[in-house]
This record gives sequence, C-alpha cells and structure tokens, in this order.
Amino acid sequence: MPAELFNNGSHICLGFYDLVDESRDQAVQCNQFLIADQGHGALIDPGGNMTYAALLLAMQRHFPSKQLNYILASHADPDIIASVNKWFIVSPCEVLISSLWTRFVPHFTTGRDVTGRIRGIPDEGMLIPLGNSHVKAIPAHYMHSEGNFQFYDPVAKILFSGDLGVSLVDHATAEQPVADFEQHITKMVGFHSRYMVSNKILRLWVNMVRQLDIEQIVPQHGQRFVGREMCGKLIDWLENLPCGIDLLTQNNYRIPT
Amino acid sequence: MPAELFNNGSHICLGFYDLVDESRDQAVQCNQFLIADQGHGALIDPGGNMTYAALLLAMQRHFPSKQLNYILASHADPDIIASVNKWFIVSPCEVLISSLWTRFVPHFTTGRDVTGRIRGIPDEGMLIPLGNSHVKAIPAHYMHSEGNFQFYDPVAKILFSGDLGVSLVDHATAEQPVADFEQHITKMVGFHSRYMVSNKILRLWVNMVRQLDIEQIVPQHGQRFVGREMCGKLIDWLENLPCGIDLLTQNNYRIPT
Repeated sequence: MPAELFNNGSHICLGFYDLVDESRDQAVQCNQFLIADQGHGALIDPGGNMTYAALLLAMQRHFPSKQLNYILASHADPDIIASVNKWFIVSPCEVLISSLWTRFVPHFTTGRDVTGRIRGIPDEGMLIPLGNSHVKAIPAHYMHSEGNFQFYDPVAKILFSGDLGVSLVDHATAEQPVADFEQHITKMVGFHSRYMVSNKILRLWVNMVRQLDIEQIVPQHGQRFVGREMCGKLIDWLENLPCGIDLLTQNNYRIPT
Repeated sequence: MPAELFNNGSHICLGFYDLVDESRDQAVQCNQFLIADQGHGALIDPGGNMTYAALLLAMQRHFPSKQLNYILASHADPDIIASVNKWFIVSPCEVLISSLWTRFVPHFTTGRDVTGRIRGIPDEGMLIPLGNSHVKAIPAHYMHSEGNFQFYDPVAKILFSGDLGVSLVDHATAEQPVADFEQHITKMVGFHSRYMVSNKILRLWVNMVRQLDIEQIVPQHGQRFVGREMCGKLIDWLENLPCGIDLLTQNNYRIPT
C-alpha cells in the first residue's frame, strides 16, 4: 500500500516505500513517488528493473500508466531510472532529467531510438506543467550528482529531495515519518558525509530552500520529514555538515600496494 | 575492429571505440576495454544495453566470454555498466566496483539474486589478480562519482582513467591518440569543468599518479594519451583546472519562477 502524502480530491501525492525487499535482494531500499493532478501524472525516481513490475501494478490501482506524462529523474543512478526502457514501452511518458545526463539515458535502453522522449532540464531548473498545476525542478547539483534536481510540488508543499535527507533503514521503517530528529541523525550522517560533495553546496542549497513554503521533505531512500519544524531541523543540520571533499586528504589518494 | 593498446604475446589490452553510433543513437560516445592475461580476462566499463551485443561479438573474436573473470567498473553510471545483467548471464564474471555502489548495482538487474557476484572495492583501492599479472584499482573518488576508481595495468603501463581525460568527439576521432594537446583542450574543458567536482581533488590525484610509471592514459570517452610527454601534459593541465563546485555561486541555486 502506498503512503498518501497529500490528497485534496483533485491533486494527490503517493509514496511507494515497500517495493525493494532489501533483506532478500541486498539492494539499497528506495522510495518511488507519484504526483497526479486532474488525470495527468508524473512518477518521480521510479527506480530500477527490480521494482518496475511492482511499481506498475501498485500505480495502476490509482493512476493508469497510459496517462503518465512524465518520469522526473533527480539524476541518472540505477536506483533512480534503470527501469526507464520498460516505462517507455508501457506508457507515453517523457523523461525529464538534467541536461548533463540526457545523452547517458539511452545507455539504459535497447532497440528503438528514444531520443525524442528525453528532455533536458537546464541547470537553472524549470516549471513543469501538470494538469492544473505544475512541478518546480529545483537546482540540487552535486547533491550528490553533478547534474541533480529536486522536485517541489507547490500545491502539496512537498519537496521531493532526491538523495538529500536520505536515511538508510529497512522499508518498514522508511514508511514512517521521522519522529525524533536527534536520534534520526545516526541514520543519515554516514551517507551524507560521503555521498554529498561539499558543505559549500549544502549552504547554497539551504539559502535557496529557506525561501520555499515547505510542509514536507521527502527523500528517495528512508524516512520523510513532516511539518515545518521537522523540515527546519533537517535544513539547519545540513547547513553545518562537513561532507565529501571537505573531509578528504592525500591519505585518501595513495597507490595501493 | 578494436584498437590494440598493448600486446606482448601473453598480455593484451584492447580498446573498443566504435560500438556507440552517437550520430544515430544520440547517446554519448563510449569506449570499452579488455585486459587478457594467460587465458584470464577483465572487461573495464563494458557500457550500457545498447553496446552489449556488439561488444560481446567483438570480444569473442579475441577472448571467450566463458573465461571472463571480472567486470571492473569505474563507477555506476549507465554508460559504464547498465548492461551488467546480460554479462552476468553470458559469463561467470564478478563485478568489482566501489563499495559505495555495490548495493546500487542490483537495481540494474531482474530476477535472480546476484549479490554473490558483486564485490566492493574498498576506498583505498586494491590489487586485483589476473592471470600472471594484476590490475591496481586506484582511488579516483569525486572524479566524478563519489565512489570512483581508475584501473592501472602495470604490465602495459596503462592507466584506464574512467571519466578523467575524457574528450567529447565522434567515434572515428575517438580511436586516434591525441596529437596536439593544446588543440585537444577545447574538446575536454567543457566536460571537466562541470563533471569533475573540485580542483582540490584533482591535485590530490595528480600528487598520487606522478608516482606511477605511465605510458598511456586511456579514458572512457574520446581519445587516449600516448607517451610519457603527452600523459604529463594532461596531468599538468588537470593540476591547475578549476572545476565543479569551485565555479558555483548562489546564482546557480535559485528557485525557478
């Protein structure tokens, strides 16, 4: 069962938290998301081949794949869009992804030329029309991918944050919103210290998102942050986190012997 | 026809430069590599689904897939290893990739649990035995991927540099070694400025590889660098290149309207 993140009758956001059985598959737990508005739909980060069939089935109960307008991809990693070839077949969707990655997406595919269905998001982001609404692609470059976007839904006031705010937990835990922020840091800090590139970038992002009206921050792995106070705690924590290249020295770059 | 990068009768390195038809497929041109030693073999960065069949066919003329020991993956992008599920079927290979990405590789696959055939390379790198020789996995983190390796062959004295030293050219040009370094910079600078993360990291890498005995630097896209003098020019150029987060300001992180 997907989690209903938002529903006002005409605009709905669903989160799929249980499609990767990380205990059986030894694969990292991932979340997938659907935004639907007036019969139009966008899947955010639909995931790899191992989740495709289950996501299709779960989505069809709420929204027909034949009406899917977009796959919105935060970046080009396998847990984000390795299933893209199958979605091209089962739906009429376009894939929107950073213009840095448009020419890499065809490497997921075989056979037909899919170029006409891959659209590059420019570095500065864009507004993506969806039904009577739109989704904002927000710059999140180097968090972690070089060309990286988050997706903000101004109706639901949800920021789908991709790999930012990620926690490494099992899928049963992932479905639950974060309850205790201080305790939750232990599930985030290892990932963010290594997969986020630099505190300089986190600060540029923090300055930007403090101007957004955010009710929920929903990452692509692990638990979501619900309410302005909890979202604010995450933003404050990221502002002061050293990570990635901040932590590396010559000691990390030596010829192995 | 692959390019013979090295051959001493018992140890051979081949480069496949023409398997992506970038004009037809609108996909980025990519190179794939085979190292074979005494009936043992490793494929480096075998690429995506669109190159799988052609690479298998081209490789079989020189080395039987049934004897393939390894796929060595510089990182987890689609142009590097989106074809991995097919190689698991057609060969007995293990995949060696940064331990940061081992739990992401299963997202390329469907069906069987392939965990036992995915081995993590620790951050400090490792020696990988191959026939009577070995390959060194050299730390190249954040160039561009967070968990990133280059592969050094001490017999051929070739550094397979992944995305470092990449040039964006057509496949006919890619087969030719770089002739004029100054002129070649124009084909490298755009990619390196955006896909490489920071000059700090380039300098750590430069300090490390100046201790290696290198005859060729062979990247995964575009042309290779042959000879100590040409390799030295590339290393010197990278040492002083600002890139990635060095170049970004608040101007790059604004809410689109």
